[in-house]
Amino acid sequence: MIHFECDYACGAHPAVLKALVETNEEQHCGYSEDDRCAAAAGLIRELCHCPDAAVHFVVGGTQANLLVIDAGLRPFEGVLCADTGHINVHETGAVEATGHKVLPLPSTDGKISAAQVEAAVLAQRNDSSHEHIVRPAMVYISHPTEIGTLYTRDELTALSETCHRLGLTLFVDGARLGYGLAADETVDLPFLAGVCDAFTIGGTKVGLLFGEAIVITGEAYRDFFRYRIKQRGAMLAKGRLLGVQFEALLKDNLYVEASRKANRQAQQIKQAFVEKGFPLFCDTVANQIFIVLPNEAVRALEEQYVITVWGKVDEQHTAVRLVTSVCTRDEDVEALLARIATL
Amino acid sequence: MIHFECDYACGAHPAVLKALVETNEEQHCGYSEDDRCAAAAGLIRELCHCPDAAVHFVVGGTQANLLVIDAGLRPFEGVLCADTGHINVHETGAVEATGHKVLPLPSTDGKISAAQVEAAVLAQRNDSSHEHIVRPAMVYISHPTEIGTLYTRDELTALSETCHRLGLTLFVDGARLGYGLAADETVDLPFLAGVCDAFTIGGTKVGLLFGEAIVITGEAYRDFFRYRIKQRGAMLAKGRLLGVQFEALLKDNLYVEASRKANRQAQQIKQAFVEKGFPLFCDTVANQIFIVLPNEAVRALEEQYVITVWGKVDEQHTAVRLVTSVCTRDEDVEALLARIATL
Amino acid sequence: MIHFECDYACGAHPAVLKALVETNEEQHCGYSEDDRCAAAAGLIRELCHCPDAAVHFVVGGTQANLLVIDAGLRPFEGVLCADTGHINVHETGAVEATGHKVLPLPSTDGKISAAQVEAAVLAQRNDSSHEHIVRPAMVYISHPTEIGTLYTRDELTALSETCHRLGLTLFVDGARLGYGLAADETVDLPFLAGVCDAFTIGGTKVGLLFGEAIVITGEAYRDFFRYRIKQRGAMLAKGRLLGVQFEALLKDNLYVEASRKANRQAQQIKQAFVEKGFPLFCDTVANQIFIVLPNEAVRALEEQYVITVWGKVDEQHTAVRLVTSVCTRDEDVEALLARIATL
Amino acid sequence: MIHFECDYACGAHPAVLKALVETNEEQHCGYSEDDRCAAAAGLIRELCHCPDAAVHFVVGGTQANLLVIDAGLRPFEGVLCADTGHINVHETGAVEATGHKVLPLPSTDGKISAAQVEAAVLAQRNDSSHEHIVRPAMVYISHPTEIGTLYTRDELTALSETCHRLGLTLFVDGARLGYGLAADETVDLPFLAGVCDAFTIGGTKVGLLFGEAIVITGEAYRDFFRYRIKQRGAMLAKGRLLGVQFEALLKDNLYVEASRKANRQAQQIKQAFVEKGFPLFCDTVANQIFIVLPNEAVRALEEQYVITVWGKVDEQHTAVRLVTSVCTRDEDVEALLARIATL
Repeated sequence: MIHFECDYACGAHPAVLKALVETNEEQHCGYSEDDRCAAAAGLIRELCHCPDAAVHFVVGGTQANLLVIDAGLRPFEGVLCADTGHINVHETGAVEATGHKVLPLPSTDGKISAAQVEAAVLAQRNDSSHEHIVRPAMVYISHPTEIGTLYTRDELTALSETCHRLGLTLFVDGARLGYGLAADETVDLPFLAGVCDAFTIGGTKVGLLFGEAIVITGEAYRDFFRYRIKQRGAMLAKGRLLGVQFEALLKDNLYVEASRKANRQAQQIKQAFVEKGFPLFCDTVANQIFIVLPNEAVRALEEQYVITVWGKVDEQHTAVRLVTSVCTRDEDVEALLARIATL
Repeated sequence: MIHFECDYACGAHPAVLKALVETNEEQHCGYSEDDRCAAAAGLIRELCHCPDAAVHFVVGGTQANLLVIDAGLRPFEGVLCADTGHINVHETGAVEATGHKVLPLPSTDGKISAAQVEAAVLAQRNDSSHEHIVRPAMVYISHPTEIGTLYTRDELTALSETCHRLGLTLFVDGARLGYGLAADETVDLPFLAGVCDAFTIGGTKVGLLFGEAIVITGEAYRDFFRYRIKQRGAMLAKGRLLGVQFEALLKDNLYVEASRKANRQAQQIKQAFVEKGFPLFCDTVANQIFIVLPNEAVRALEEQYVITVWGKVDEQHTAVRLVTSVCTRDEDVEALLARIATL
Repeated sequence: MIHFECDYACGAHPAVLKALVETNEEQHCGYSEDDRCAAAAGLIRELCHCPDAAVHFVVGGTQANLLVIDAGLRPFEGVLCADTGHINVHETGAVEATGHKVLPLPSTDGKISAAQVEAAVLAQRNDSSHEHIVRPAMVYISHPTEIGTLYTRDELTALSETCHRLGLTLFVDGARLGYGLAADETVDLPFLAGVCDAFTIGGTKVGLLFGEAIVITGEAYRDFFRYRIKQRGAMLAKGRLLGVQFEALLKDNLYVEASRKANRQAQQIKQAFVEKGFPLFCDTVANQIFIVLPNEAVRALEEQYVITVWGKVDEQHTAVRLVTSVCTRDEDVEALLARIATL
Repeated sequence: MIHFECDYACGAHPAVLKALVETNEEQHCGYSEDDRCAAAAGLIRELCHCPDAAVHFVVGGTQANLLVIDAGLRPFEGVLCADTGHINVHETGAVEATGHKVLPLPSTDGKISAAQVEAAVLAQRNDSSHEHIVRPAMVYISHPTEIGTLYTRDELTALSETCHRLGLTLFVDGARLGYGLAADETVDLPFLAGVCDAFTIGGTKVGLLFGEAIVITGEAYRDFFRYRIKQRGAMLAKGRLLGVQFEALLKDNLYVEASRKANRQAQQIKQAFVEKGFPLFCDTVANQIFIVLPNEAVRALEEQYVITVWGKVDEQHTAVRLVTSVCTRDEDVEALLARIATL
């Protein structure tokens, strides 16, 4: 079976694996206090044009989300997000387990707007019972979103301005950031670092064995962040593994270039479906595509491919998701394109 | 100013105050392990036709809700409720502070249906990513609801059947239960005890200085419940005060009779507005009424009365809530009726 | 049976009950935003010579403790206290339920010293693994302590200086503060307000039906404290009851005078035991006394009196605690004195 | 600098790295639901003679500890452990962050006894205020302990019997289990599986890049454990990495044989210190050794070696810890032995 259901079906990108093998015998002190992590963090600061950023590495995205969100909220405060946001629907209540309410807003194309944020904040603040209502104090968005869409530069600027004017912080979940950076170069790392208070550079879905870099650009969240990492079980003993991998992934623009290739593969697959007359469930520009297929076409594909059933459209049709990654092989894409042509 | 904005503006019903005064010099052991609490608990078991019920007394409704809900859920489980439910909107995230996600469902007239519960439960269980989604394990409803409506016997039976067939428990928040019992006698204490796993008999809003009785009729929630009460700071040192008050309130059918009078007062007020041509925001049968008034009428009323602004309807109109309680004086109602007639 | 086992066996002091009865028909807005609470808070600020103090009222001591401690700590921080401290041994893990570790220190006469605090703080800070160790950030003491002893002015000054020099805050649990104020007038309210960041004025054990006043004198803990109260289920709907009671208790020096009488009763009882040759388990000056009795004397007393068995001393002897309160009747003390004389 | 300060300074054991490289291009579904994890879990069940064990893989030891402990406790329950236990002193309050109190017992040689557990449990249960005291419901021990000592077969049997007779569960933290198995073959995997309710097979400190296997042998803790893993951010997206590594480590007895070599290296180092007349801080048989050295000898060693300063013994002497691992090179040991000889 060939996997197109997610971007974490393979191991590591060859360059990352090579770095791990080459450094395996090195000795380092533990818990990401080593030279490898320092080098990777330095590279990130440089790429972000943000020499003062605090950079932390953790193994997984749920860890990154719960750590930053808990750091950004007092117990009675909540985090606004899209109703489709990962923290609201696919982390088994990880944020709630830290005691905070997730405050979902209706989303359009997986996104929420500055106007929605402002309305939600003012509704709570102007309510005579405001003390009885969870206080919105943070906005969480994903870029790309859960359904593969991208925020524009203007949308991000507006969210940033609104959050900061109202005293909220803005956190961007970049679990698939590489694919976003490759798909829209106007939202690059320095821009992102400028608009939000923290964001993650996702590694797990972009060619690492594992790893997310948490980049804290503002003053919020910073204090004693490593204590938080340890308390939540997110401090890797052999922390150098995170530094080694991120350094390999980020240098020489590999992060964006390899993502660009994956985007191209995904868009080729999308095009093949479209050319066969299958409608898009929603349109995307990065490494995820969403198509509506007749049920029998789904079954036919599933004989050779693992894909994600996204939802039932009607009795005869199903929305499916296909995903490429920096590890997707061209030969697998070509075989799939051929298969689609015969559906 | 005369208060019609809530049902907790006064002190205690005279019968309750009398009982507190008469027993003030009694000496009892602490923490509700006294004879007064035992007597009140016995009376509740009798009224519920439920000799095996576990009965606990706490000071407030938020305490009761968070205690029962936390007792009914494992950390990764959530509680389904109406989007307008008190736990979702007016307890500052008290349930989330115990680590659990509140799972709101769209409500109609403040109510949710058995079909909605079933759909939500099956959606999670049948999802291939179900382990990444908070597991619905409990249903929370209020009777009367937040907007003063009542569940029918059939609706409650259907909710109960659905919950228990799917392995969920059903918890009924009875913060205003007296007014509900008085307004629809087909949903009485024995019926309620039969359909749910736990419910509360609200005292604070029905004439006590404070106090909610938690009645656990099923096997769920029971174990070591007093440890939970203590851990959450909800164990009253002079616990006998809860027993004394509940005994005074519940004996001789005072709970229902006094509530009936308050309902009648509220309905008189509603009628007065209707007769003046003001539309109902939503119709109710118990002690809360919701009217749409021109803004100037609101301002006029607010010169003498404290009422609750429920929401803006349009530029010229506002929805307001007026509430009576077992402590509402007839003379205050009569004066208000006269005032409405001149609006 | 006559109760000498605790200071919460009775109802309210007559002056408090009278105030509740007299104000029962008043109408007030809820949640302690009423005039009665404002008046009581004003009186407390005046008595403390602390016009800027934030004053909040809650029902019980465990609530007060968990609220202040959670407000004073980040998630990875802990609170230092005596190993015998109430939060460490008698609140069913209420502090841990808010996510924080309690850091007990060995106590002498129920007390901890500034030197112990400093050593514990430096041990963590200077450890190369400090990020893996809970960070002490707050000190909790009780005055009087759990075993009825009192901190001296010098001890409190030293604790205060050490805490503030090291960046910790100091919180004093005054569940029995009245008895302490009456027993050692050098530690009065203005002094206390000056040395700590917050303290409680206990009402439950000093003649109220219920109620603890949280007095926040410093900048720490203040922000949005009412949100915390609501979230933890500690916001009383008929909040005015707290204001009414505290006003009655605190005016005309009743708090101290009534406590002084209770202390005198307790010391008379202690003297009676001593004169009969029974040794003290530990010596105290306020409303609790601790005596070592032969087991048969314990059994003899228990025929008429409820007392607390504090612990087994040896096969033949038991340490017991007797407690008086502002509600203890002189005739009960006299009868007890007579009974002791015949043991 | 050569690292002897911990057992996680290197990368992976060569056999483990080889397996990761060889399987890098395999495609697997995520979240440890793949064939590699199934194979590793099967191998563990076989090695433990425990065909019904539930086996889960997580990245780190703090994750494993907090997951199992939270699964084994109701909110008001606590876990007994040695005062030196990792959860009590070196996880930044990770257990408390899940809401539970850690209940430390004085330890001897890093160990606690069945008699201590029984006494602690009965003290709580027989206290008249037991509802106000955290309820001991679980015992946590480490094997080897934090200071490198081992429980004997008899000690473990007694702990097991006591726990189960009193209704507690027993959890063994095996972060360094390989070194323990190699040092005392009478405590092998089948024996361990038989005495406790769950234990971990540590990988991080025994040659994996990362990874701990949680082996649940009893009925406790099992339900929905994967939901817990996800909620706490401990579910690895590319979960197959855990399966691949554990399979490589556990097959052909590599886990024990490689550990045995590390133990031998550590004991050689210990012997070299002893022969030079330096006293042991405590005696051990596995991969950690503790020596008391003159301060100048510590400084001399630290010129070439990273070692752990364990504590100050007196003004002139310091206790240090040296640790070997399955990745320690013989040439580094030999050089160290030569250096010790010249101290």
